[in-house]
Amino acid sequence: MKTNGQNGEGEPLLYEEVAARIGGMIRNGTYRPGERIPSIRALCRQLRISANTVMESYARLENSGLIEARPQSGFYVCSRLAEPAVLQEPLEKWKDFTPNPATIGDASLEVMCAIANPSLVPLGSGIPNCDLLPGNKLNRMLSSESRRFSLQSIAYPPAQGHKLLRTQIARRSLDSGCPLGPDDIVITSGCVEATNLALQSVCSPGDTVAIGSPVYPTFLKSIQWMGLKVLEIPSTSQGMNLDVLDYAIRHNKISACITIANFNNPLGSLMPDNRKRELVSLLTKHDIPLIEDDVYGDLAYSSSRPVSTKAFDENGLVLYCSSFSKTLAPGYRVGWIAPGRFREKVLRLKMLLNIATTSPTQLAIAEFLTNGGYDHHLRKIRRIYARQTALVRDMVLHHFPLGTQVSRPEGGYILWVELPEGYDAFKLYEAALRVGIAIAPGTIFTLCERYKNCFRLNAALWSERIEQALVTLGGLAK
Amino acid sequence: MKTNGQNGEGEPLLYEEVAARIGGMIRNGTYRPGERIPSIRALCRQLRISANTVMESYARLENSGLIEARPQSGFYVCSRLAEPAVLQEPLEKWKDFTPNPATIGDASLEVMCAIANPSLVPLGSGIPNCDLLPGNKLNRMLSSESRRFSLQSIAYPPAQGHKLLRTQIARRSLDSGCPLGPDDIVITSGCVEATNLALQSVCSPGDTVAIGSPVYPTFLKSIQWMGLKVLEIPSTSQGMNLDVLDYAIRHNKISACITIANFNNPLGSLMPDNRKRELVSLLTKHDIPLIEDDVYGDLAYSSSRPVSTKAFDENGLVLYCSSFSKTLAPGYRVGWIAPGRFREKVLRLKMLLNIATTSPTQLAIAEFLTNGGYDHHLRKIRRIYARQTALVRDMVLHHFPLGTQVSRPEGGYILWVELPEGYDAFKLYEAALRVGIAIAPGTIFTLCERYKNCFRLNAALWSERIEQALVTLGGLAK
Repeated sequence: MKTNGQNGEGEPLLYEEVAARIGGMIRNGTYRPGERIPSIRALCRQLRISANTVMESYARLENSGLIEARPQSGFYVCSRLAEPAVLQEPLEKWKDFTPNPATIGDASLEVMCAIANPSLVPLGSGIPNCDLLPGNKLNRMLSSESRRFSLQSIAYPPAQGHKLLRTQIARRSLDSGCPLGPDDIVITSGCVEATNLALQSVCSPGDTVAIGSPVYPTFLKSIQWMGLKVLEIPSTSQGMNLDVLDYAIRHNKISACITIANFNNPLGSLMPDNRKRELVSLLTKHDIPLIEDDVYGDLAYSSSRPVSTKAFDENGLVLYCSSFSKTLAPGYRVGWIAPGRFREKVLRLKMLLNIATTSPTQLAIAEFLTNGGYDHHLRKIRRIYARQTALVRDMVLHHFPLGTQVSRPEGGYILWVELPEGYDAFKLYEAALRVGIAIAPGTIFTLCERYKNCFRLNAALWSERIEQALVTLGGLAK
Repeated sequence: MKTNGQNGEGEPLLYEEVAARIGGMIRNGTYRPGERIPSIRALCRQLRISANTVMESYARLENSGLIEARPQSGFYVCSRLAEPAVLQEPLEKWKDFTPNPATIGDASLEVMCAIANPSLVPLGSGIPNCDLLPGNKLNRMLSSESRRFSLQSIAYPPAQGHKLLRTQIARRSLDSGCPLGPDDIVITSGCVEATNLALQSVCSPGDTVAIGSPVYPTFLKSIQWMGLKVLEIPSTSQGMNLDVLDYAIRHNKISACITIANFNNPLGSLMPDNRKRELVSLLTKHDIPLIEDDVYGDLAYSSSRPVSTKAFDENGLVLYCSSFSKTLAPGYRVGWIAPGRFREKVLRLKMLLNIATTSPTQLAIAEFLTNGGYDHHLRKIRRIYARQTALVRDMVLHHFPLGTQVSRPEGGYILWVELPEGYDAFKLYEAALRVGIAIAPGTIFTLCERYKNCFRLNAALWSERIEQALVTLGGLAK
């Protein structure tokens, strides 16, 4: 250990090193939220440093919001660290809002292009790791099925989608707690089309949509394009804040609510079952349709996937949307919607917009679900995503400024990072862009003035290049 | 020949038989429009019947609009029979119109479902004959290409579509007179999506669209869904009436014009090149975008395909839409749009709506265009469609009421049938439905009170079942 004093080469001071070391132990889980950390005296002994140095270190950690002093008791890891460090704003601050026409700024549109730019390190995108997808098997099944159903592959597909596929999806629907029949389902060109069909089936221009905030930017684009107004409802690790939603519903005419309850993009959060039930019941009371995007639901790290909000839907008010783009093949463009009581409207709109979804890829995915070992495949990628998400999380905690907080998802591969107060994630995005790295700054996830110190990270990919990019990014942030 | 008088068994009277015989000779082309038919005296001699009988027969043919008497000269085949027998109404009748919000009646919506019902004889649909499509070859290419481009098939496709495919489409664009580059093209999920993207990129709710009438019903559905107003512009064998269009533009604010210039659906008509040029020039003068649906263009019966209106577009005002659904594989859902100056808008909207078009089918079609013998295939199906269209036309002229008129398309496989004045094609549709046959009555091709004695026939299919259905239909009409 160096002596406690400024050295000539600009190296960190001793108290800073100690703060970093303890901070690291908090972030890597050695000390968990609410737990006591070593006392000043104990640390002096362990590290053989002065009490002053330890006290300076702890003051620093306190300022960063990592620890708190409890009188007569010692220092504890802040218990609010148990939450993804977003949206700690008091409820009142969210209550003085009115629905606003969605208008996405040019800066956000530019970011959305950048994060989809394949020549940049794709840390800002939401794409899965294609190396983990069963490409060869799927493409083999694409061959065999298009031979087996030679005429069906080339003829106009049924508008609702192939029954073979709808049946397989229906069989799996028990896993998400909502026993669907093949006829309850409409096949779409991916989940984005499904949510668009849903929105267009339940809203008209000028209507207001309540949506969990931070908002998946593609929703914002659809909402803007449809001429809808938007009410952002704050979300935490428990999903959408239902008190705020309730308040919003009582003070505004809300035409639809949108949620990503399972492994939210961008928060990574998982809404507990009882809150899903509450959400559906609140909306049912006011006859407001709920559009659920469950595209990450199959990527739970635990052995079984979480249920969908549709599991609690007794009135056909939930339009449940999902796809195989995160688990099998985004390039196949196969998703689906279970639109509840809006089925006819959704189906008519699907026919109107593009007649039906491509046949051969539907048939291939139906075959994969039947004989491809989908569950085995899911177990494999869930394990990998759990590991990689933890790795990226650790790297961020290690390489980013002290006090940086990262969500701790239980599924998917999306991380939400919050830099310490005062940091500007958009500037970090710009600096990263200059060195060929794309991240998604928090400002693209809202139409308000929020999330300026936040950004979304994609942890699906792992390689030396990604690792190096994270180190570079951390350096830029500092 | 029977004697001229009512017989006991309700068999046709002699003058009716004579009228039918001469009518048949007109319809099968023995006597052509403008040509003189035998004089009364000559026919008396030839058939050994009385002058009274001939005169009664000719009076009947005159009433049906098949022949006309010219004083001092004799009887002639009506020259207006040279035209597809639609829209002979005087211009003035079309001028007192104002744009109206599109509202499709329930009856029309029911018809649209019926003509897509696979359990009925599909004489009302617009689908191609899948037995003529190169299914095996395409499906083989789907296999080989998804193996060859294993990662690209499953990964997110480029929003604009695969460059391989765009390049092949660009190479063929010279055939339609408009040399496109790969970057001018956006791949879509079929032509219907292309025209929807086009409409949504150039119109806002409340805008007015000018469109050739009778109107392809899918356009009407899109226009209604988008909350647009519609001005139907009468069309003849020469395409849209440009005088009426000019009048409409001068008296209304028109935001877009839609045309199917090549082998129109439902008229089968082909707009001559000089009129295409005039159309583009008229619209350019008023800065009105033109959306062209050219999905039948490749199905010309002649050795080369007609040019597109885009061939005359010097200002990027034409949004050219097409697909491979009529020539290769509707189930692959691969179409494209060359949106001219609206490229960015169309591309952004495509991304917003469903991110991109399915990959493997794009790659398979690119390979078919490169090595599949597309031109050879086109020559084959063009010949067959020309033959079948003529066959169905003859059957209609033979089996339907005297005075029934049928369009004479030079490409595609769509026929427009006009029953004699006073006949009700919707009643025919209803009667046909009861015996398991679907036709498309004229009323679904308009939002006004028109085309009541007309219907559309699909001549793509030919089988004993179809032949029998046509005979049944003719019987029902009579």
